[in-house]
Amino acid sequence: MSVEAQEAVDALFNPRSMAVVGASANLAKWGHIVPSNILRDGYRGRLYLVNPRGGNILGLPVHRSLSEIGERIDLVMITIPAEMVRGVLDDCARAGVKVAIVISGGFSESSPEGKRMEEELVKAARARGIRLVGPNTMGIYSAPWSLTALMPPVRPRAGHIAFAAQSGNLGTQMLGWGSHWGIGFSRFVCVGNECDLDFADYLEYFANDEETWVILLYVEGFKRPRRVLELAREITLRKPIVIYKAGGTEAGKRAAASHSAAMAGSQEIYKGMIRQAGMILAETTEEMLDFSDALVKMPVPRGERLAIISWGGGWGVVEADLCERQGLEVVPLPSEVKEELSAILPSYWSKGNPVDLVGIVNLEQHARCLEILADHPAFDILISLGTINAAAAFGMSDSPVQAPPEGRDVFAVRSRYVREGTNRFAEKVLELMNRLEKPIITVGMPQRDDGDSELDGLPHNRLCIYTNPERAARVAAMLVERGRYLRSRG
Amino acid sequence: MSVEAQEAVDALFNPRSMAVVGASANLAKWGHIVPSNILRDGYRGRLYLVNPRGGNILGLPVHRSLSEIGERIDLVMITIPAEMVRGVLDDCARAGVKVAIVISGGFSESSPEGKRMEEELVKAARARGIRLVGPNTMGIYSAPWSLTALMPPVRPRAGHIAFAAQSGNLGTQMLGWGSHWGIGFSRFVCVGNECDLDFADYLEYFANDEETWVILLYVEGFKRPRRVLELAREITLRKPIVIYKAGGTEAGKRAAASHSAAMAGSQEIYKGMIRQAGMILAETTEEMLDFSDALVKMPVPRGERLAIISWGGGWGVVEADLCERQGLEVVPLPSEVKEELSAILPSYWSKGNPVDLVGIVNLEQHARCLEILADHPAFDILISLGTINAAAAFGMSDSPVQAPPEGRDVFAVRSRYVREGTNRFAEKVLELMNRLEKPIITVGMPQRDDGDSELDGLPHNRLCIYTNPERAARVAAMLVERGRYLRSRG
Repeated sequence: MSVEAQEAVDALFNPRSMAVVGASANLAKWGHIVPSNILRDGYRGRLYLVNPRGGNILGLPVHRSLSEIGERIDLVMITIPAEMVRGVLDDCARAGVKVAIVISGGFSESSPEGKRMEEELVKAARARGIRLVGPNTMGIYSAPWSLTALMPPVRPRAGHIAFAAQSGNLGTQMLGWGSHWGIGFSRFVCVGNECDLDFADYLEYFANDEETWVILLYVEGFKRPRRVLELAREITLRKPIVIYKAGGTEAGKRAAASHSAAMAGSQEIYKGMIRQAGMILAETTEEMLDFSDALVKMPVPRGERLAIISWGGGWGVVEADLCERQGLEVVPLPSEVKEELSAILPSYWSKGNPVDLVGIVNLEQHARCLEILADHPAFDILISLGTINAAAAFGMSDSPVQAPPEGRDVFAVRSRYVREGTNRFAEKVLELMNRLEKPIITVGMPQRDDGDSELDGLPHNRLCIYTNPERAARVAAMLVERGRYLRSRG
Repeated sequence: MSVEAQEAVDALFNPRSMAVVGASANLAKWGHIVPSNILRDGYRGRLYLVNPRGGNILGLPVHRSLSEIGERIDLVMITIPAEMVRGVLDDCARAGVKVAIVISGGFSESSPEGKRMEEELVKAARARGIRLVGPNTMGIYSAPWSLTALMPPVRPRAGHIAFAAQSGNLGTQMLGWGSHWGIGFSRFVCVGNECDLDFADYLEYFANDEETWVILLYVEGFKRPRRVLELAREITLRKPIVIYKAGGTEAGKRAAASHSAAMAGSQEIYKGMIRQAGMILAETTEEMLDFSDALVKMPVPRGERLAIISWGGGWGVVEADLCERQGLEVVPLPSEVKEELSAILPSYWSKGNPVDLVGIVNLEQHARCLEILADHPAFDILISLGTINAAAAFGMSDSPVQAPPEGRDVFAVRSRYVREGTNRFAEKVLELMNRLEKPIITVGMPQRDDGDSELDGLPHNRLCIYTNPERAARVAAMLVERGRYLRSRG
């Protein structure tokens, strides 16, 4: 009768059938919002709605109970008030449910009575062979099934980051930001109160999941830190784990306690543990996405020697400062590289690393200079500033508002030239990364993307483009550290 | 015959007439690109083109010399090779030119001979009563004159930040990023090699310029640090000065020396000087824009007590951590505030600061809770996370791609509800800031804006919206520090 955690997590992310218990015709109820989110994103399994009142909702018949459906149900999502949840477990058991997501709040995070109710719920579920996600969770996402079983209206982008978050609001907004910035996810779970399934269970599943290349964790506190450590130490040899540890200060700890019933613990102990297990610590929420995306899209460098190339001098100065502060080696240019670059660039170019392209307008020459640096064995990792998406960076548009009649064509031509030139530059970056297996980090304005199929076809979504040199330097340092870690463990 | 620096800078930013010397019909030459940029943005003065060959370019007649124009010319922009620049000074003098922008490179930044040529140029210009900007500059921007006299195709947004940059590429890209993010500028100058007019001159002008509310500097090294210090100490009592000091590390110093002929100097000495003069140090290029924009759009807080309000718990935890690390006081909620909030929020809300809105969907209630906090004298500054631009944050759209026929209306309704709700929330933030003179910092996805007049009408462009809690915490700390500084100087 007992269901192993891994079998339950597998059902959670790959349900052939699922049901929403507490389905409602009321637009403002989660029992309506959650199934409408599931339908919108085109869940590939079979979705059933359950409510004792029956009827029709969202074009689907409403079943009076799970067992009435007459089919084995892999996953249920329970949207009814806390005190009623336990009452539906027998029905779940009869329908063969393996795992239930309990989105209801009012359990251990809110009061001692809630905590008792939660403990009894776990006991009752275990006795019936049902594993639990949450309670107090915002749900899950699973890309291979186009399953967006979430409370907020977020529409995640499919990709290769698996994300377990101890905050639904933070986690789901990050999914939305990822959609905005071309960052995709394989799986997402808001762990909630972790009354049953916990971080260690999800981590173990992600480790063996082929859809997942990088694992991302937002953690206030672990229930089983030893188990997580043990798993992570093994997983990080194969897949990177990026982790953000919240709740380090007194103000944060107080907030975390009331938020997810997590004891935040000592930040120093956690950080030591994280490093020891080879996990990558994101120091900011921005780094959570930046690091995860970089590890999906770029190879890990074989060494630590960095070349910087920038369209204009200032960005090179700033980036060189930043990289040196991050402990990266901005190494001198070999003489043959200087000669090759001198054949392309005006006589007054910088003749050093960073390579200053001194504002030259020919973008094919930018690409050629990048290639010279990338091809040379003296460099393991590159940062390119200013060229990528230059049209977007300068706020250029093909349809100027105020151009005089004589000038209009000139601007359209120039804007198109820059746009096409930076697109070819992006293609070159991708080609070099693939051919040489060296990371090339770019700094510029991201192209805008709302799932526009025209933009989706561009190489930009397969590149890492950062809006400022600080983000690029931090990502470079992270990649170098990841390479060092992998070499240190052979 | 001699022109005072301030008179020259005034002519630079307010030229009733200007000429481009070296105008060209060749699309790839700066002598074509610069005047086409000027024409496109609708310069409000009179533009003349000069080239000994004559003809017609961009629909304008080309004059063979400046004196041939037969009118006093306030400003010239010289786009001819370095060694030819001195040769046009007599013509400039005859036309009564007060100030010349020399964009040509190949002067002191590139070689000892270039340095000698630059010194001779300055001497010759002084003798003729002409002041110089550059050489090796990318030009200027001046909002009241719609004057975009720049080499790159950037289209700055009009606003109230005056920006002097020792890098044209960095400076002009930041103007473009500003356009993207709703950040506007009053004036911009790329200082170039500062052979004549320098940072101190521009700073003095910005101090007395009514269009300018905040001054932004990107500096590799000052020519007259003492004078800058003296000016800044007086200016910062009235107008904030935000400064980014590049070239702190050895790699950065080497890069700066070849870039702008600046001696980067000791970073520690500079930082001490910056603080002593009450300038605000941006530690990252992102902070250059974040801080300047915040100082334009938000009042300075009267004290240091902070309230945090977030749609969901996780963001509150993260922000509380960050603010405490920044030395901000996340003070307890007064009991009457708790009571007022309890009348609105579900019983399981956090009952502390940060205020966790526990995911409630009614956005009018978010606005009401924000108002309760803002209205109370216990708080001097507020951060709101998750509510602003929630539709954008979640990647919502009015036209879902895959909605089933029955679901389509539901999504349009919900998306519109969220969009309208967050717009009303934005209006409320503005109203509270105006009425109470307390800064309210928001975290969310910015609305997209390409100068679309519909979006320009929204309140979002008048708010500070940061894409992550780290930026919000840094801005809050900066504003609190600014308030402390002003109070300390009475």
